Amino acid sequence: MGKVVLVIEYDGTEYHGFQLQEGAPTIQGEVERAIQSLTGERVRIAGAGRTDAGVHARGQVVAFVTESTLPPETMVRGLNFYLPQDIAVKKARRVADSFNVRRDALRREYRYLILNSQTPSPLWHRYACLVSRPLSAEAMDEAAGALVGRKDFASFTGAYKGSTVRTVYNAGVRRKGDLVSFDMAANSFLPHQVRNTVGALVSVGLGRVSIGEFLGILMSESPGACGPAATPRGLYLMKVSYPDIEEQDS
Amino acid sequence: MGKVVLVIEYDGTEYHGFQLQEGAPTIQGEVERAIQSLTGERVRIAGAGRTDAGVHARGQVVAFVTESTLPPETMVRGLNFYLPQDIAVKKARRVADSFNVRRDALRREYRYLILNSQTPSPLWHRYACLVSRPLSAEAMDEAAGALVGRKDFASFTGAYKGSTVRTVYNAGVRRKGDLVSFDMAANSFLPHQVRNTVGALVSVGLGRVSIGEFLGILMSESPGACGPAATPRGLYLMKVSYPDIEEQDS
Repeated sequence: MGKVVLVIEYDGTEYHGFQLQEGAPTIQGEVERAIQSLTGERVRIAGAGRTDAGVHARGQVVAFVTESTLPPETMVRGLNFYLPQDIAVKKARRVADSFNVRRDALRREYRYLILNSQTPSPLWHRYACLVSRPLSAEAMDEAAGALVGRKDFASFTGAYKGSTVRTVYNAGVRRKGDLVSFDMAANSFLPHQVRNTVGALVSVGLGRVSIGEFLGILMSESPGACGPAATPRGLYLMKVSYPDIEEQDS
Repeated sequence: MGKVVLVIEYDGTEYHGFQLQEGAPTIQGEVERAIQSLTGERVRIAGAGRTDAGVHARGQVVAFVTESTLPPETMVRGLNFYLPQDIAVKKARRVADSFNVRRDALRREYRYLILNSQTPSPLWHRYACLVSRPLSAEAMDEAAGALVGRKDFASFTGAYKGSTVRTVYNAGVRRKGDLVSFDMAANSFLPHQVRNTVGALVSVGLGRVSIGEFLGILMSESPGACGPAATPRGLYLMKVSYPDIEEQDS
């Protein structure tokens, strides 16, 4: 009997998000099914982040309690044997029973990919949001810089019970050819925070919203002030970091 | 009445290859259907390369004769409106009636992506071949270098009527993290040549075949000497170049 942590990668396209739902395919449901196939146990997993429908992960972290004494490497191979091709376990590790996958996470990193091209790209269709008019990645990066620090991010989420103060460690936008990527790391995130932030940053990149107006949205601390969220398709949970677990690469 | 050339990108996962087949989805079939929807004409397109089932393209080139006088930009937008999400037109251009999309091609470039990782990657599943044991990209690159020049590539295709001599302009292997990529450019390619070459190069990278043995396979000029072909999933037709058409980026 003990607690096991898995680092998992998934293509969220075909799933109704991470969290278990009756009658709909979810990441949690598939991982729990694979654990049952491998160990015979019905377990409940907890995830570090509840990614929405269509959102991908490079380094989601989940934890569960098991009677199984399989070595971690065998668990990785065994679970990958049972998992569908769009979900894979990258690492497994035994942790102390006191470990809490949500509460103990120190830092979460998300990436959002935008294809800035006049024509759609079939090879990026599942993995990036298409913006056909030219984006200024420089303006977006400047606006993103204003997000760093301990701030109230109420403007970048909907109605939310509880504190909307979060600490953002970094937020930046880079362009590489047609691909514009936004990286953001924080202690934790509010629901839809990254996609809402990207929606507002795209308005900045298109010149519809000035950097001053973007700061005004942030400082207004009013739910929904950010405008519409970006599509989930471009979003990736890249990495979750813990004090006592070696960080996974991402 | 005139000839139009399209540069197209596609995710080949769901298709039975480029070439028209009765009762099976093909790239040619979808493009011809979109042209008919846009112009009302039943046309037959010709492609620069006949990619196999599951093979992708960043820069496939096709040509057709049409009565349509739509400007190229309108044709791009109109065809993309009718095409499924896994096929897109990147460029359109009017060319002389004498233009032949296969015969006039001077250079074709292919890329093959290998994910060299102990665990599968759902986000690369459609787009790269998984090799779980460690590959020496250096050894593969050294072997690939032997392919450059005007040579008989009979060992890298099956039974083939006609000359198996081709001119390879470059062939090289690079590693970036877990991703090992093979790029090859030639005047033209034999059927399955790239996938057969990759199959043999992977054997070199795993240490099963020495560089000397790889040279022996090449010099034997005997069909099938290369061993099994690599899966189509990692293969991309990147670019086709013509003397009188500006080259598309890839």
